[in-house]
Amino acid sequence: MMKAFVLRKETSELQLETLQIPVIGDNDVLIKMKSAALNRRDVWICKGKYAKIEYPAVLGSDGSGIVEKIGNNVSKEWLGQEVVIHPSLNWGENPSAQSKNYSILGMPTQGTLAEYCAVPAENIFPKPVHLSFDEAGAFPLAYLTAYRAVVRQANVLPGHKVLITGIGGGVALAAFDIARALGARVYATTSSDDKLLKFGLLGGNGGAIYTTDNWDSDVMMATNGFDVIIDSAGGPNFNKLTNITVPGGTIAVYGATVGAVPELNLHRIFWKQLKIIGSTMGNTDDFRDMLAFMNTHKLRPVIDSVFTFENTPNAFTRMAASEQFGKIVVRISE
Amino acid sequence: MMKAFVLRKETSELQLETLQIPVIGDNDVLIKMKSAALNRRDVWICKGKYAKIEYPAVLGSDGSGIVEKIGNNVSKEWLGQEVVIHPSLNWGENPSAQSKNYSILGMPTQGTLAEYCAVPAENIFPKPVHLSFDEAGAFPLAYLTAYRAVVRQANVLPGHKVLITGIGGGVALAAFDIARALGARVYATTSSDDKLLKFGLLGGNGGAIYTTDNWDSDVMMATNGFDVIIDSAGGPNFNKLTNITVPGGTIAVYGATVGAVPELNLHRIFWKQLKIIGSTMGNTDDFRDMLAFMNTHKLRPVIDSVFTFENTPNAFTRMAASEQFGKIVVRISE
Repeated sequence: MMKAFVLRKETSELQLETLQIPVIGDNDVLIKMKSAALNRRDVWICKGKYAKIEYPAVLGSDGSGIVEKIGNNVSKEWLGQEVVIHPSLNWGENPSAQSKNYSILGMPTQGTLAEYCAVPAENIFPKPVHLSFDEAGAFPLAYLTAYRAVVRQANVLPGHKVLITGIGGGVALAAFDIARALGARVYATTSSDDKLLKFGLLGGNGGAIYTTDNWDSDVMMATNGFDVIIDSAGGPNFNKLTNITVPGGTIAVYGATVGAVPELNLHRIFWKQLKIIGSTMGNTDDFRDMLAFMNTHKLRPVIDSVFTFENTPNAFTRMAASEQFGKIVVRISE
Repeated sequence: MMKAFVLRKETSELQLETLQIPVIGDNDVLIKMKSAALNRRDVWICKGKYAKIEYPAVLGSDGSGIVEKIGNNVSKEWLGQEVVIHPSLNWGENPSAQSKNYSILGMPTQGTLAEYCAVPAENIFPKPVHLSFDEAGAFPLAYLTAYRAVVRQANVLPGHKVLITGIGGGVALAAFDIARALGARVYATTSSDDKLLKFGLLGGNGGAIYTTDNWDSDVMMATNGFDVIIDSAGGPNFNKLTNITVPGGTIAVYGATVGAVPELNLHRIFWKQLKIIGSTMGNTDDFRDMLAFMNTHKLRPVIDSVFTFENTPNAFTRMAASEQFGKIVVRISE
């Protein structure tokens, strides 16, 4: 038996329950979890604001651990290995977009907020040796999403000026880390002076508080415009983003937390020949390439906080308040 | 002296006037015009709805003719040649977008609706031998814009399903011609049964009347979605376009005649990993490649109507009413 946090429709609260340890198929592995991490997605599912929620759900898309059992078709070399989990399931054949069968680990499949997690063997990769289990459990979804947006979709190059909105979130910080490693100059927006300060301490090149008047003309004055913007907010600020992108520049969009864009100025988009490119998660090639890039550049996710397994509900409270700067980790076992 | 149609601020009407024949610089050529053609841009300038209008203006961005004089630095081989004019001036060094100095032939520079037109020698190209002067005077801006949108930006490939909005316009028909030559299956939308019929007679694979209810779900049912959409309308229908694009697909935008997009659904764009790519006109490489493509595939612009030079104002009236199916040509000399 194992302990796991379970979301049941009736309560919409996470309950620590005792479940069967998952039985694995021939192509799967069973991982004894070391660390997991939260993503915005987990909070949305708790609030009932996500497409096709199935109950009961064991949430958690990020995790690190040790392979404890393997299916009949899996190489024995994996047994006992320290691994991280690639959270994309059933992406499909098209590298440009996920298939209809695609899902993210942790609802509808059982996720990482449990003592054990079963995943297909093709979804495990060796833990980067320069990272702790907490760090390794924190980076997969964020760095995968950021890598696809920054490298595959926006094609950030050395010398590019890059703006990342909403710095403090896990993907935004990962995008910063990756873009900087590529040789870009990286700027950020946030609603908080404190987060902007932390961004500067990490080596950010500049930034703005997006709730102030004229933040867009201020950064425009300072930078002369951005080659690439990585956005997850949308909403009314999106038209400002098209204004502070250089002609021929790219805005990669991996979220829309603020919602739809009122009155998108399409005239500016065609006259400036801008590219707006949607991006979500990533496929196995993206994960493999991201991991190689991470190992080469010794990238390291920013950890906001580490909660004990029993304190998982408090970790969700912190994520829901958007107070974090970096990943919120849950340590499942020592 | 020469005759030319001149737009003066005071009247906002085109007047046939007698002007000096332009004096050419060392790198320019003087063309005795055979045919010119109208573009939406010319009508907007007449209505005062265009950025940075300078008066008086000789309009006209499209034209064919014969080189009558050459500047000191220009190869003598051009003298007497039948040529078409590439309408982009001062694009600049960045292939991704035009520079701040960019302009389109015909305001602020003197355009093609005159008996003579002076342009830089780098803007003239041999007239395709399979085209008449009327056809050669009709295609440059439309095929340049369409080629950049379809080939460079949207990267249409053999077997792609392509939707072109507003069929009947010069660029839309050029986009159809180019996409079909690339081996795509091409569909179109229009507001007119008559234009849809004409599109079918040209070999279009299907289409819809965009003013009807459920046009989007109808074409979705018929096609299962489009790999590429070429749009110049924007407005409320734009969200429907993102709905009928396949995951990972592209919408290339070269205009926004209906205006801004109310409530752009950004969530759909990132989840479907769509690309929205602005496109306008094209640079000299685009023009050269388009011309080679046109000669290889023996492409031929659709001509809506041919007006005599004296009847140029009537040509503008027809363009303003959006009744045309194809290019509206003005024959300047026989």
